[in-house]
Amino acid sequence: MRPSTSEPRPAGLRTTAVVEAIRQRLATRSLGPGQRLPSIRAFAALMGVAPATVVEAYDRLAAEGIIRARRGSGFYVADMAPEPLALAGSEPRRPRAVDPFWVSRQSLDADATTLMPGCGWLPADWMPQEALRRAVRALARNDGPVLTHYGAARGSASLRRVLQSRLAGLGIEATSEQLVLTSSGTQAIDLICRMLLRPGDTVLVDDPCYFNFLALLRAHQARIVSVPMTPSGPDIAQFEAVLAAERPRLYITNSGLHNPTGATLSAQTAHRLLNAAAAHDTIIIEDDIYGDFAPEPSPRLAALDGLARVILVGSFSKTLSAALRCGFIAARADWIEPLIDLQIATGFGGPGQFAAETLTQILTGGSYRKHVDELRARLARARPRVAARLQRLSIVPWLMPRGGFHLWCRLPDGCLAIDVAQAALTNDVVLAPGDVFSAAQSAAAMMRFNVAHCEDARVMAVLERAIAQVAHGNAARVSRGAEA
Amino acid sequence: MRPSTSEPRPAGLRTTAVVEAIRQRLATRSLGPGQRLPSIRAFAALMGVAPATVVEAYDRLAAEGIIRARRGSGFYVADMAPEPLALAGSEPRRPRAVDPFWVSRQSLDADATTLMPGCGWLPADWMPQEALRRAVRALARNDGPVLTHYGAARGSASLRRVLQSRLAGLGIEATSEQLVLTSSGTQAIDLICRMLLRPGDTVLVDDPCYFNFLALLRAHQARIVSVPMTPSGPDIAQFEAVLAAERPRLYITNSGLHNPTGATLSAQTAHRLLNAAAAHDTIIIEDDIYGDFAPEPSPRLAALDGLARVILVGSFSKTLSAALRCGFIAARADWIEPLIDLQIATGFGGPGQFAAETLTQILTGGSYRKHVDELRARLARARPRVAARLQRLSIVPWLMPRGGFHLWCRLPDGCLAIDVAQAALTNDVVLAPGDVFSAAQSAAAMMRFNVAHCEDARVMAVLERAIAQVAHGNAARVSRGAEA
Repeated sequence: MRPSTSEPRPAGLRTTAVVEAIRQRLATRSLGPGQRLPSIRAFAALMGVAPATVVEAYDRLAAEGIIRARRGSGFYVADMAPEPLALAGSEPRRPRAVDPFWVSRQSLDADATTLMPGCGWLPADWMPQEALRRAVRALARNDGPVLTHYGAARGSASLRRVLQSRLAGLGIEATSEQLVLTSSGTQAIDLICRMLLRPGDTVLVDDPCYFNFLALLRAHQARIVSVPMTPSGPDIAQFEAVLAAERPRLYITNSGLHNPTGATLSAQTAHRLLNAAAAHDTIIIEDDIYGDFAPEPSPRLAALDGLARVILVGSFSKTLSAALRCGFIAARADWIEPLIDLQIATGFGGPGQFAAETLTQILTGGSYRKHVDELRARLARARPRVAARLQRLSIVPWLMPRGGFHLWCRLPDGCLAIDVAQAALTNDVVLAPGDVFSAAQSAAAMMRFNVAHCEDARVMAVLERAIAQVAHGNAARVSRGAEA
Repeated sequence: MRPSTSEPRPAGLRTTAVVEAIRQRLATRSLGPGQRLPSIRAFAALMGVAPATVVEAYDRLAAEGIIRARRGSGFYVADMAPEPLALAGSEPRRPRAVDPFWVSRQSLDADATTLMPGCGWLPADWMPQEALRRAVRALARNDGPVLTHYGAARGSASLRRVLQSRLAGLGIEATSEQLVLTSSGTQAIDLICRMLLRPGDTVLVDDPCYFNFLALLRAHQARIVSVPMTPSGPDIAQFEAVLAAERPRLYITNSGLHNPTGATLSAQTAHRLLNAAAAHDTIIIEDDIYGDFAPEPSPRLAALDGLARVILVGSFSKTLSAALRCGFIAARADWIEPLIDLQIATGFGGPGQFAAETLTQILTGGSYRKHVDELRARLARARPRVAARLQRLSIVPWLMPRGGFHLWCRLPDGCLAIDVAQAALTNDVVLAPGDVFSAAQSAAAMMRFNVAHCEDARVMAVLERAIAQVAHGNAARVSRGAEA
């Protein structure tokens, strides 16, 4: 019943985490031979650990000859550093770093030839290019300040009106005093954390959860606890026990369609979850970014709770555009004012007016509903097709989601997802290994697949080869073990 | 020689600051009768003080009957709260809150009829509307992911190439590994603070400095110290003394054209400043956002220092567009990697691709240099004209800047800038009172004017009336004082 805890951990574990984070950067080439390592202080801040922990980790790597200290100028990657994949392949039993940035960095910086079944967005030809072009051209004719000036402190009034009516459709009654636009859905969560969290505060997440929640909470030096996910939401008995035992300040989740599992919160779980949160004064951030992919509306915590202790955040990055950055927060009015000030202090406001007005054009133009219907239909066809292909490789979905583009799957016995991901990367295929989603490190055999990126035959071919390679490597090690 | 300190202050002062911040929100109508006050915790986080300090402040306001506590649901503005400007007018000798958000909030949310000589940007008709339209239309024809997808983790490669050559022109040699794009110039500084600062760390700023530096540093719970500005940069003797005495972690400044004073860093001051920073291991953030307004290049700290301990940040919000949010950081390569990860964790990346590519279009199109030349010429004509009008009201520039749109001025004797600003606000004119720029609260008689917003005759008329009103109020109080 005791929840898994990732921060604070015994010092040894924290040091290992830093060591492994550096190894990961070497393995993924984000740090190359001769390059300087992050400064002690910078990396300590990033990992949310004490500088002394980073010093210890760097010393350990220096002792291995992987990095070298230069008097007065920090640590550098040794020129003779083992090649990334030699490193990955040669010591397969060494615990892998679970770096929540791994998938993001690989996906964001992938070149055109790279396939990305691990990424968290749709391919370009699934996005409403033509509607975006029309909206952009329409705005180019506008001679107001939309092309030149900062927007209002709360963000575009017209987009907030659209959001109000969309939220009303989900049973969430938000006044205009309860809405603020942000630069992105992630930045919305960051602002809320800045308002509510102090270093060391406990935050509850699902296991598994969106990997960037873990990166964000680490940046806030939060103590992360997690409860296992079930097909109808978090394991509610454990959820209640953790709230009683840990009294987390915050719980962060996706309710509509859960990332990565595709689970849908049941009405009963939602009800018990809110009662537990009320009993222990836990605030809830409900990230609704995948909500529009659900075929029919599912219970929203914010609707049941009436935005009392639930803060709803969202964006249109997954359905409309991630190139026009814009997210939003719906919360208690008395929380919105400090959030606006915080957003001015830390970014001088939220989304660009141009991005916000472009999204408004499309959302009010009537083409959005049609576009989303098409996305849902196309994904409904793709999901079973991709699931069938994966099962031929003995990769089994944990759940068949009712919507969205993610399939959370179990790999064949004995395959560590991170090994498979490293092997696939050598063939320019970016995968999403399970443990990057798991604060409890309970998903070593799991993998998240984006069905919209699995149509290319090369994906399955590379995946099959990577699995064979990893299985073979394991077998070889086992036999070597037998000889020894 | 002892530097002014805004954090930590004696508890009494901190409580007063919170009390005054609430009074300011009442006076500026950002909190109205019956509205709920920010939660204790949220407001403590925002002000960078202990929750207990906020509790004390709220109790004090409740005792005055200005707010009321409702059992279990927080504090509310009393329905009988005195009218904002009655409040401002009736007790003029009560120390005013210096809320760094005051100017931002008034300016961002001003309606079309409001004049904004206090704001920090140019009017719409000074911005390159047509060039922006062309660039936007050109991008609308692009069929790549520029309309739909996240950009690279470091941001647009083409814009970074443009930045590299622009920086080279300033004598700053930055490799592509030393550049990362951000959502805004402010967010660039915020990311750096997140990487380098811990709560309670000391940060040095100029007195006066850009008010949002103070808001940002407060959000980071930094201890702010300041040194007086001179026409050639910070008072270097005091700067050296403060570095020796306080060993600040960071120094944040504008070198090109200083905000609000318009001062230009001299080569000699820059040299001594860098030596002092090196001697005491202080890192410098050089905000170059106004650099393009300077008629000829002035010394950049980043150029002298070679991006060793100086981090350069900038954006095109002032010269091209604030509606297409995009800033940048140029720094040591080993600092860029953690900054990229932090930006992914807290915002899932920087500027939207569309904004970055639009700016690239204009910066590479050749029209930018011409546009900036025109801006400089137009401002060179406006500065003396506006200065002359102000002097007719006995408002005297502290310095005649060689570029930019700000004039930092001293008001007639006995006029408190905040009183004048409050009075002008009743006539829909937003001013920028000096103390919002001053960590030391040394600028009560100063005011920043944006010459591009001073052409409307109503500005001088309202200003004259506000000054008369404030002077009259003072005289009346003096005579009442005599009778008592």
